[in-house]
Amino acid sequence: MNLTDIIKAAHGETPVDLLLTNAQIVDVMTGEIVPQALAISNGIIVGCGQYEAKEIVDLNKRYVAPGFIDSHVHIESAMTCISEFARAIVVHGTTTVAADPHEIANVLGTDGIAYMLQAAEDQPIDIYFTLPSCVPATDMETAGARLTAEDLEPFFSHKRVVALAEMMNYPGVIFGDPDVLAKIDMAKRHRKPIDGHAPGVNGRALNAYIAAGIRSDHECTTAQEAREKMAAGMHIMIRQGTGAKNLKALLEAVNDRTSRRMMWCTDDRHPHDLIEEGHIDSIVREAIGSGLDPILAIQMATLNPAEYFRLDHLGAIAPGRQANLVVFSNLQKPVIEQVYCRGVATAENGKILPHIQAPAPAPIAPSMHVDLNTIDFSIAADNKNIRVIELVADQLITHECIEQPTIRNLQAVSDPSRDLLKLAVVERHSASGNIGKGFVKGFGLKHGALASSVAHDSHNIIVVGATDADMQTALEAVVNMGGGLAAASNRKILARLALPLAGLMSFEPVSRVQRQLDALIDVTQEMGCILTDPFMILSFLALPVIPALKLTDKGLIDVNKFEVVSLYE
Amino acid sequence: MNLTDIIKAAHGETPVDLLLTNAQIVDVMTGEIVPQALAISNGIIVGCGQYEAKEIVDLNKRYVAPGFIDSHVHIESAMTCISEFARAIVVHGTTTVAADPHEIANVLGTDGIAYMLQAAEDQPIDIYFTLPSCVPATDMETAGARLTAEDLEPFFSHKRVVALAEMMNYPGVIFGDPDVLAKIDMAKRHRKPIDGHAPGVNGRALNAYIAAGIRSDHECTTAQEAREKMAAGMHIMIRQGTGAKNLKALLEAVNDRTSRRMMWCTDDRHPHDLIEEGHIDSIVREAIGSGLDPILAIQMATLNPAEYFRLDHLGAIAPGRQANLVVFSNLQKPVIEQVYCRGVATAENGKILPHIQAPAPAPIAPSMHVDLNTIDFSIAADNKNIRVIELVADQLITHECIEQPTIRNLQAVSDPSRDLLKLAVVERHSASGNIGKGFVKGFGLKHGALASSVAHDSHNIIVVGATDADMQTALEAVVNMGGGLAAASNRKILARLALPLAGLMSFEPVSRVQRQLDALIDVTQEMGCILTDPFMILSFLALPVIPALKLTDKGLIDVNKFEVVSLYE
Repeated sequence: MNLTDIIKAAHGETPVDLLLTNAQIVDVMTGEIVPQALAISNGIIVGCGQYEAKEIVDLNKRYVAPGFIDSHVHIESAMTCISEFARAIVVHGTTTVAADPHEIANVLGTDGIAYMLQAAEDQPIDIYFTLPSCVPATDMETAGARLTAEDLEPFFSHKRVVALAEMMNYPGVIFGDPDVLAKIDMAKRHRKPIDGHAPGVNGRALNAYIAAGIRSDHECTTAQEAREKMAAGMHIMIRQGTGAKNLKALLEAVNDRTSRRMMWCTDDRHPHDLIEEGHIDSIVREAIGSGLDPILAIQMATLNPAEYFRLDHLGAIAPGRQANLVVFSNLQKPVIEQVYCRGVATAENGKILPHIQAPAPAPIAPSMHVDLNTIDFSIAADNKNIRVIELVADQLITHECIEQPTIRNLQAVSDPSRDLLKLAVVERHSASGNIGKGFVKGFGLKHGALASSVAHDSHNIIVVGATDADMQTALEAVVNMGGGLAAASNRKILARLALPLAGLMSFEPVSRVQRQLDALIDVTQEMGCILTDPFMILSFLALPVIPALKLTDKGLIDVNKFEVVSLYE
Repeated sequence: MNLTDIIKAAHGETPVDLLLTNAQIVDVMTGEIVPQALAISNGIIVGCGQYEAKEIVDLNKRYVAPGFIDSHVHIESAMTCISEFARAIVVHGTTTVAADPHEIANVLGTDGIAYMLQAAEDQPIDIYFTLPSCVPATDMETAGARLTAEDLEPFFSHKRVVALAEMMNYPGVIFGDPDVLAKIDMAKRHRKPIDGHAPGVNGRALNAYIAAGIRSDHECTTAQEAREKMAAGMHIMIRQGTGAKNLKALLEAVNDRTSRRMMWCTDDRHPHDLIEEGHIDSIVREAIGSGLDPILAIQMATLNPAEYFRLDHLGAIAPGRQANLVVFSNLQKPVIEQVYCRGVATAENGKILPHIQAPAPAPIAPSMHVDLNTIDFSIAADNKNIRVIELVADQLITHECIEQPTIRNLQAVSDPSRDLLKLAVVERHSASGNIGKGFVKGFGLKHGALASSVAHDSHNIIVVGATDADMQTALEAVVNMGGGLAAASNRKILARLALPLAGLMSFEPVSRVQRQLDALIDVTQEMGCILTDPFMILSFLALPVIPALKLTDKGLIDVNKFEVVSLYE
């Protein structure tokens, strides 16, 4: 943008590119609705008021608000690449995201971050990044990378990097782990905010976490927790994701005084939710529907995150700001009818406009490093009982239960009649041959196997199955696709979803990903699975920071003790 | 500060340095009053709540709020050095200022800025700076320096520099002056906000000014003006100075929705006001007295300016923030009883505490460069009428009136019987011998002369008098003091105030400066002067940006035409 041209246009010396007339402007600065025209030049808002214009669009008294901002999102959860993610959310009015590329960083390290930064170029929306602070999540698993402060340093000066991402290692902060403090110190030196992640942390532990310099939190689950964290100085990101939904519980903490330091985030939204519910727009609608003042709800989607991330060119309809706009008819239930990105009409009535082309995807290095010949799912029998992971309905936590193994031919085997299935995590970053093995109850599979290269946070390949042979077939399918999800039975692949981008993301549109996911779930149900979303559940069974019993490539993890434990008691 | 120590103290692992118990904490984050203890270590707030402490101070249910912040101030207006200014305001609870060293920069250029940055070290309060954007104010006067973007560049990375200072050259912005845009561009590259100064600018001109990147304004005089500027994206600094008082007019624009982007500033406060009224505390009291919610008034003195200037370590009582605190008993009329700076008790009941020593003042280069032998105040007679500057009661604007000169010995001379006094501006930066001469009506002096090296914005020496001889005597006194104010009659100095620091500031305490000012004013009244504050009026007669007729060292200035005009019509 040429500043002189912008100033001239704003001053009325040259006709503006576009004038939106008969607009009801949602003024997030003053909290008022202002009936006025809105002038845009070079993708920049140059002013409200009447201007001579090359093109005029009559908004017919519809509302126009700043484009919405997602303050914390893992794009990888949408299971598609940045281009397709951008297309999926822009139709819902999200024109900016602060994305934490934490999943791909666990697979590809700094190469993954660099890839995402590159892929964010030339997108219709503005994709900013927060730098993953906790890769790997723990030492009890093999990730594709280990990111130190020195590794992150070069990225802090990148124009798209706005913060240090969620500091999940809150014990590390509170107990002054030097590696953790080095990352905090680096973010401070670069004058970037540091996002937090401190579920349930309160009192002096919270004071210590915040005193270290953590500025926000998106893990509040009660209004009381949000109030304590806000009083102690945190900006509160209210999360309404696919798994975690905190809106209803936290609305009580939102009012005229507190809302300035609050904003919305999705954290993780799966394809189904993006298609069926929407994105930040759905949160704004739900908040208003639950009684929140529409202006506050929109400020939390616009000005507040822009201020928090110091994106002074976004978040408001005012001269000099980027012309990211959403148009809707009903202030009490804003359904996004038009979206402008940098002054360009980009989406209408839920569809992206034909002239908005996705940039060609950049190539990405393969991330499946598994020597299939060395994989052995067998578990030798022993006289003891076994520790079994027991699923808990609708939750990511698990229980540990103690069972007698089913023994056949001196092997502990899956026993679908007892809903006792073998679970394995195959290291896939360095072909180390590491494999963790255990058992799980709660899937209900009667035959066959499921495998997935989406397995938080290290994203090794996790496999569950009724027979070792089908587990091997499903694993092979995932490896051969370069990553993805697969369901196999009788040594045949019944359904699959390729995720060649780091084993986490597709290059296909979200809708096509969703159809393939639907097909996978149909197949698993035919295989007897009793879970609504078995692959989502599977993907969290390798995450050794959520209690009680988990499995990584290093073996069974007692999360409460934070240590590897043996299968046999 | 050692971060590990702070974290340990916040976590309760080590006793904190100081615990303020029985406090009513003004929580500017949530807008609530919270009865709780407050723990401080290493000058940092480590948390609210109970802590084991080395020292306990019982606040007896008094209120404790964050220290106040002045969002825009010219320290030079207090006519004393940084050390004495800091001592004068800290007793009123101001613990941080964003100072524009615009006056000294007009005299000493970058050396003046560097001097102020150095003098800000080791002060009890935190002195931040905004970089003067408009030195000199115009080309119609000789200043001591001309500051380009390149001159300012090295200062932007200084830890005390928080913004580009008030962009007074709004026509330069609106018409895209390349030198002006270069400064704006530089501030943006350094990610610093740009303060504005756009009295009465509105509509498309305002849009152009803001589109260029200007972020704030402290020149609003009506609520309507403030609302328009805020809607267009500006942060509004409500000014309550010695001259300009905008609080009453602007309060109407302050409410729960708008106040987050509003703050207080003094701009210019003379010694008398600092002593008699106070500083930001007086504005907070007056705002509350006029009906503003105390929490909003305090937020505008604390959190809001801290956010605007991105001083994340200030502006709130929360873990990790600097322990700058004010204590008071009455929320409806906060009179500051105790002040803590970085956790240290600094002032009590209007007095600085004995252990708070002022650092030794750094030496400063002389700034009086005048060859007294070359100065000639005489004005040759002509047959024409003369343009005369006519004072307007209680205002900085002047009128132009046309008068017949009083002629004696072929010279146009002062004629006290007609209240027609000679006025001269003597260049003092480079001994160029430049002298502008004219006449002024409205002082009322019957004899003698006044001279001042405080003469906005170039700060040449301005002299008014009944005889050339007394004008010479007063001028000589100012030069010989190294700058200052003087009143002379019958070739004797009747009163004086030395301002050896750039001809603008004393090294004496504000109270002593005030006593000398009082003596000067007494003398001028005995000389027949009818003005309450003749030196203040005198200091603005050289400022060629306030209409209608002014005098610089280059001659009479028709401010409406923005050009030099001759004395004779």
